[in-house]
Amino acid sequence: MITAHPPYLRAEKQVAHLYEFELACGRLLEKVTIGYETYGRLNEARDNAILICHFFSGSSHAAGRYHPEDAAPGWWDAIIGPAKAIDTDRYYVIAMDALGCVRVDAPHAVTTGPATIDPMLGRSYGPDFPPLVVADTVRAHRAVLRQLGITKLAAVAGPSYGAMQALEWATLFPEEVERVIAAIGLSGFQAREMGLYRVMLEAIRLDPKFRGGYYAPDSPPNDGLAVASGLMIMLSSGREQLQAAFGRRPAEVGSDPASEADSAWAIEEWLARETLARASFCDANAWISMLRTNMAWDLAAGHGSLEKAAATIQARVLLLPALGDELADMPHHHDPLHQALRAAGKDVTVTPLPAANGHLAGLLDIAQAAPAIRACLEQA
Amino acid sequence: MITAHPPYLRAEKQVAHLYEFELACGRLLEKVTIGYETYGRLNEARDNAILICHFFSGSSHAAGRYHPEDAAPGWWDAIIGPAKAIDTDRYYVIAMDALGCVRVDAPHAVTTGPATIDPMLGRSYGPDFPPLVVADTVRAHRAVLRQLGITKLAAVAGPSYGAMQALEWATLFPEEVERVIAAIGLSGFQAREMGLYRVMLEAIRLDPKFRGGYYAPDSPPNDGLAVASGLMIMLSSGREQLQAAFGRRPAEVGSDPASEADSAWAIEEWLARETLARASFCDANAWISMLRTNMAWDLAAGHGSLEKAAATIQARVLLLPALGDELADMPHHHDPLHQALRAAGKDVTVTPLPAANGHLAGLLDIAQAAPAIRACLEQA
Repeated sequence: MITAHPPYLRAEKQVAHLYEFELACGRLLEKVTIGYETYGRLNEARDNAILICHFFSGSSHAAGRYHPEDAAPGWWDAIIGPAKAIDTDRYYVIAMDALGCVRVDAPHAVTTGPATIDPMLGRSYGPDFPPLVVADTVRAHRAVLRQLGITKLAAVAGPSYGAMQALEWATLFPEEVERVIAAIGLSGFQAREMGLYRVMLEAIRLDPKFRGGYYAPDSPPNDGLAVASGLMIMLSSGREQLQAAFGRRPAEVGSDPASEADSAWAIEEWLARETLARASFCDANAWISMLRTNMAWDLAAGHGSLEKAAATIQARVLLLPALGDELADMPHHHDPLHQALRAAGKDVTVTPLPAANGHLAGLLDIAQAAPAIRACLEQA
Repeated sequence: MITAHPPYLRAEKQVAHLYEFELACGRLLEKVTIGYETYGRLNEARDNAILICHFFSGSSHAAGRYHPEDAAPGWWDAIIGPAKAIDTDRYYVIAMDALGCVRVDAPHAVTTGPATIDPMLGRSYGPDFPPLVVADTVRAHRAVLRQLGITKLAAVAGPSYGAMQALEWATLFPEEVERVIAAIGLSGFQAREMGLYRVMLEAIRLDPKFRGGYYAPDSPPNDGLAVASGLMIMLSSGREQLQAAFGRRPAEVGSDPASEADSAWAIEEWLARETLARASFCDANAWISMLRTNMAWDLAAGHGSLEKAAATIQARVLLLPALGDELADMPHHHDPLHQALRAAGKDVTVTPLPAANGHLAGLLDIAQAAPAIRACLEQA
């Protein structure tokens, strides 16, 4: 018996190669690898492709499972799959690793970045990997899509760093993007975000194992990465969720961190464990590269102003900010992108995600945006 | 000729000693030193004293200048002085160093803390300094006030960590505090704040010079302190002010940090300079101690609930939250203290400070609260 819909969406990492690729900074990368996963099938008209772009510490494992026993599916599995908001019975969904992806745990991420062997030198690029901007990943993904015979996208979608890529797509190649679904994104880093990311960068450099970026492969600066990762977690997690999960509880029942030098709070114990676990599958130089790419992010760059950038967009835009987001769509931070799109007469819809999970609502609560995503995709 | 009001308010550090002092954790500190400054004169009835408590990285240099040539006066000079909101022609104002003050640059701060020589061991307490809670500083200050013949305070006032002390005063010794002026305070650390402070703590420990807290006096872990300090600066500074001051400007005119690996943004250059300068007059173990004291802060502790703590307060309370504060009075964080005081029928007034300077409005914009402070002090 053949089942049309297996009991799980099967994910498999595929790999595309670019013989050479010129970056915005002018440097040429040779033998670039881009990891991707596809769900659903490309139709004959080749017009049902949706590109999924990942967040800072994400990868192209956006949906499905590699094996039926996998503990968790891909990060947007709640909205990608048969009969889901991004319906793989209808759309050919392609998720790709960003250039310089911070994860280095194949099969999750396999794309060229600082930890990759430089074919010219025979050792990893390390801290000498050239500076990346969001547009580099967009152009690299576009080159891969051309290899797959895709010249137009029904949508580009992603959360956070993925939203930046989606917006960049729509301004760089307006005629090739029909819809943008940008969750928990922002149109440009301002001084506060840049400063906070600088703190993470300095924490990584502080680790004595970092050695200016030339660390030994078997002795990576995971303590520094853990501190940086801890700050990212605290800034992106929701205030309410953190309080519900940890509150003011001590790590050990009956201990009192207020009066005992060797006692800790529950949130501390969790952070210590969680951040070291995350550091174990990330690369420090890639983290620094990704921090710098984010700090440089400005949709207006190359357009003169955000208004002019917004005016170039032809796609329908769905913005999914999170009400409790203190990292990207901060409460006092009226995102000027929405205003600019409205002012330019663009087709833009804003559907807020709930507050409790902070920035992470773009991952944890994305199912709540399913009706808005369906509506965005169904309109012609 | 004698001038009653010299052209500047003269500040001078004074020092009080406590032969021994028992901390809440049960440990006994011997030969405790408390630095303080006074402005104005104690009246005969001894009922015109106002205690000023300092913020995390502050000291008892709250007003005036040590020398007429000092570049800047004390941190609340805008509201403390002759004819100012806290009028030194009328009040005897006493500012005191908190126990475990992070600053170790006499004459600014001279109070016992981790960098002080332990009289029993003949070396600095270092990481073995006992855990402190806010109530310890309150009780130590109270003991010093008794030495000065003061048993009742017309007000206790302070910003941030100083506000926590003021609130603790009013619940521990309700009959001795007539007014509380709490700027940019919060009634207790929640999981999010605890986690962010944990990140700072880990950044200090990451510095290879930290050596578990037993660092050489001539080789302190200033790089780690700078990272921690950088995070504190970014969390307490105002989003609007940072954007106005630094925006997306490169550190060097004509450079492009987006494409040049060795270029930096203006905010990065400033942070690097500012944080190393601050680290140079702070002690790393004291910073860690102060972080832990803040993480443990909970006005409700010992009372059973915040409502019960609020019910014990007899003082009139003036709360001065900052509208743009993302550290203490966050936009989505309805401070339950105000509600609890209202519910208990207490005399509480809330006067918000402007948003642009974030948490730091409690220092930089405090002059705007002058009318509210005068009103609080003038009512009998």
